[in-house]
Amino acid sequence: ELGHFSEDVNKTKTEYLKSFQYESGLLLSTWIVIRIDGCHFHRFSEAHKFEKPNDEAALNLMNSCAVGVLEEFNDIVFSYGVSDEYSFVLKKESQLYGRRASDIVSAVVSYFSSMYTMKWKDFFPHREIIYPAYFDGRAVCYPSSHILRDYLAWRQVDCHINNQYNTCFWMLVKSGKTKSAAQTYLKGTQVQEKNELLAQLSGTTDYYNKLPPMFCLGSSVYRSKKEKNTVDEKEEGGIVDKLCEKVVIEYCNIIEPSFWEAHPEILDS
Amino acid sequence: ELGHFSEDVNKTKTEYLKSFQYESGLLLSTWIVIRIDGCHFHRFSEAHKFEKPNDEAALNLMNSCAVGVLEEFNDIVFSYGVSDEYSFVLKKESQLYGRRASDIVSAVVSYFSSMYTMKWKDFFPHREIIYPAYFDGRAVCYPSSHILRDYLAWRQVDCHINNQYNTCFWMLVKSGKTKSAAQTYLKGTQVQEKNELLAQLSGTTDYYNKLPPMFCLGSSVYRSKKEKNTVDEKEEGGIVDKLCEKVVIEYCNIIEPSFWEAHPEILDS
Amino acid sequence: ELGHFSEDVNKTKTEYLKSFQYESGLLLSTWIVIRIDGCHFHRFSEAHKFEKPNDEAALNLMNSCAVGVLEEFNDIVFSYGVSDEYSFVLKKESQLYGRRASDIVSAVVSYFSSMYTMKWKDFFPHREIIYPAYFDGRAVCYPSSHILRDYLAWRQVDCHINNQYNTCFWMLVKSGKTKSAAQTYLKGTQVQEKNELLAQLSGTTDYYNKLPPMFCLGSSVYRSKKEKNTVDEKEEGGIVDKLCEKVVIEYCNIIEPSFWEAHPEILDS
Amino acid sequence: ELGHFSEDVNKTKTEYLKSFQYESGLLLSTWIVIRIDGCHFHRFSEAHKFEKPNDEAALNLMNSCAVGVLEEFNDIVFSYGVSDEYSFVLKKESQLYGRRASDIVSAVVSYFSSMYTMKWKDFFPHREIIYPAYFDGRAVCYPSSHILRDYLAWRQVDCHINNQYNTCFWMLVKSGKTKSAAQTYLKGTQVQEKNELLAQLSGTTDYYNKLPPMFCLGSSVYRSKKEKNTVDEKEEGGIVDKLCEKVVIEYCNIIEPSFWEAHPEILDS
Repeated sequence: ELGHFSEDVNKTKTEYLKSFQYESGLLLSTWIVIRIDGCHFHRFSEAHKFEKPNDEAALNLMNSCAVGVLEEFNDIVFSYGVSDEYSFVLKKESQLYGRRASDIVSAVVSYFSSMYTMKWKDFFPHREIIYPAYFDGRAVCYPSSHILRDYLAWRQVDCHINNQYNTCFWMLVKSGKTKSAAQTYLKGTQVQEKNELLAQLSGTTDYYNKLPPMFCLGSSVYRSKKEKNTVDEKEEGGIVDKLCEKVVIEYCNIIEPSFWEAHPEILDS
Repeated sequence: ELGHFSEDVNKTKTEYLKSFQYESGLLLSTWIVIRIDGCHFHRFSEAHKFEKPNDEAALNLMNSCAVGVLEEFNDIVFSYGVSDEYSFVLKKESQLYGRRASDIVSAVVSYFSSMYTMKWKDFFPHREIIYPAYFDGRAVCYPSSHILRDYLAWRQVDCHINNQYNTCFWMLVKSGKTKSAAQTYLKGTQVQEKNELLAQLSGTTDYYNKLPPMFCLGSSVYRSKKEKNTVDEKEEGGIVDKLCEKVVIEYCNIIEPSFWEAHPEILDS
Repeated sequence: ELGHFSEDVNKTKTEYLKSFQYESGLLLSTWIVIRIDGCHFHRFSEAHKFEKPNDEAALNLMNSCAVGVLEEFNDIVFSYGVSDEYSFVLKKESQLYGRRASDIVSAVVSYFSSMYTMKWKDFFPHREIIYPAYFDGRAVCYPSSHILRDYLAWRQVDCHINNQYNTCFWMLVKSGKTKSAAQTYLKGTQVQEKNELLAQLSGTTDYYNKLPPMFCLGSSVYRSKKEKNTVDEKEEGGIVDKLCEKVVIEYCNIIEPSFWEAHPEILDS
Repeated sequence: ELGHFSEDVNKTKTEYLKSFQYESGLLLSTWIVIRIDGCHFHRFSEAHKFEKPNDEAALNLMNSCAVGVLEEFNDIVFSYGVSDEYSFVLKKESQLYGRRASDIVSAVVSYFSSMYTMKWKDFFPHREIIYPAYFDGRAVCYPSSHILRDYLAWRQVDCHINNQYNTCFWMLVKSGKTKSAAQTYLKGTQVQEKNELLAQLSGTTDYYNKLPPMFCLGSSVYRSKKEKNTVDEKEEGGIVDKLCEKVVIEYCNIIEPSFWEAHPEILDS
């Protein structure tokens, strides 16, 4: 018998219970960055036999999900991904979810996660996903485009440093060293030494700089002013062809000003 | 050429950029409730032809994902789901992610979302998922088990009220009324009137109370002290059979004290 | 007997109790404005017989306290006061109290309050302070100097609107109208009408613009690059005369760019 | 000419500027503790020649201000002070300032500071206050009366430990040791050793326990159910004598349950 339920929790009580939930919005007129990171991805990548140091299919899957996120959330103007991490930049004046951090972070991370699972079979047609991949996320505000670009530069420097280290590490392991010996060997080595080591082990001059740019530079995902998609859209009077900005993936230097000068609309939006 | 990257973003700058991200933990010694809600689920349920007012398969899929969440996150002691919404209760002294709201909310919502997509085919074997389902989430703290139980009672009352309304609404629509006529018809009706309407339209006495309890009461998911699973666990000396609490789903009254008296371990944990 | 106290509250417990107190700093690289407002100042101004609509001594006391605040807190670069309200602007990169809002707000408001009580007799030599004046305060972040200047302009517009209204209101009251009749009379009147009313009641053309600028424009308090104070400062080898920026009070238009162009060092600091 | 001001800052802009200020309330149904601490009080106490280790007049002034705070803020049910620190406890369901931390902290600290300056001459009739004393403050929530009492116990233990140390330290200094020698001498000494040292230096058995309880136990300030004040209050029909709870100061053990058992109304309020 449930008919008397509603009397137990009346309007006043409901308001009281709701008022425990308060979250202020992220500071207005600042760039919001949502950064998501794979949870226990070391284990996930081993269980799913990802190639080391970089698995091209896995990275392409990540990028494809990021494209999906930009197509779903119009306020995201740029995103940058490396390894199992992705940063999404919302425009300064975005009012998405009243700028409440939990709502924005959870919606973005949830959409990304669902997409990752859905698109898995497109990128790994011969490998079943064993258990769900998942991500944690957080929001950070940057008050100026200058500091925002410093943030993105930091992520790209991190990409480069980690990639060079990992490339050396796995080449040493493949050459017969144990993981722990490889680690010891690399401790304290500088950029130049690592490059020489790579040339030596691979027998290829300038080996590192011949790697696919996606590995060295990470992936930038944004709306292109140049490339447009034709989209059918319902309007009064029937379906109409509309030109729509296409979301593109690029592997480019985002530290230098040239990228931003070539795409002023990204941070002006 | 990327070798000079690392000099651009030095240690001090990195610390500066990191320090924009600060999030304090949720108040210690309070119950944390993570509530997730489907985003645009009205559209999703139509696109995927969910039965109205309740789609049993869709609810079972939600419940199955909640079971998965409890199996992954040990600090979640109870969860309650209704429609496209689920509330997860973390124990008072949980230190999960240092109690940072964004991390906890995003990890839970991400795991739930991946699982939803992965398990879809088990519950809808003959229907393809067309586009990703996703959820937003938030964290609320309740300082006492008394208020926590009020919160859960509120969700169950809401389940009941909505279910009764929706059952009437869709029965009127199936009987030939337009949606807007059905809405007008139900405006301001009381519990008793709705029950009589249901009896009359269905030709069944006490129709509402004969509905599956999952529809009327929602779903409670928790670890059972009684039912245990045998789990293989690696230990020194080989794999060992271990008794492990089983996560169970029940459709029961959680407003009355009897449920909590029968399961004192849930809120004592 | 207290000797056994210390065993009751041990180190672990102390850490636990401390960890309930967490407050994140205000977003880095943003202007922090501390705005304080008199509590129950309507009552306070009546009890202390302040002249209406503006009491010159009371305003000078407020300004003198603001000067004291700027002399005590080096990170405050500008402040603006009107009536029983004062806004203090901290420089963008201030690290005062680790940018924790409660600490900054409380220290500023406490210093201001003590000073108000201490300096009372200098401004009201023949009137005893009957009970303590007090203020509440809050911190707001503004991410750009553009928005900060909009904030200050808003406060000065408010000053002007309130002053014009109050000047009319009290002139009507002094002319014999009841307070409630004066209120009704002024309802909906525009700037121009109020100016004509003032001219008519006072018998003075352009009466409003002949009022002391402190009443119409509020008070701006900042460090002057031009005027310096000689201060005795202890250094190795004895006391040394040092030139030190003088904190000045001005009644000027801070909406127009000219003020900021004439004092670029204020927002560049 | 200011008449055109109001057009510069219109309604929309005002709302925008206001919306930068958002502060959520402190968690409902938790005890709020406002703790204030003297800023640079070491310097202040030297400049104003406070007796060491405890200045009775200075402590009485602090207590008198705390009484004033309880008389002004009805939601404060208890306060505890030691040295230049005071903790004010607001009742669990207080709605003071919508539970916004900055407002509550600033109003309490401001009232306390004004009062400190106003009452100075009552406690130091022959010593002028040279410069304003000021305090910083913060709010902490405790979700149960059990943890709240642990917090208060912690402060009293701290009072005891500091007092015993300071009593020894200043007795050694008065006996001719330098401050740094006294510090070295006391390093690592236990309670028992300190008590013996005090007995030996003072020539008095059990010297420490004969000190004024205010020094050893700190000061507890609360409303007494027993002692009432007769207050004149304005009511319709004239002034009426009303019985009003008196705020009292006690120097008692608040660690032991006996105090709280004798005053159940304090935490039941």
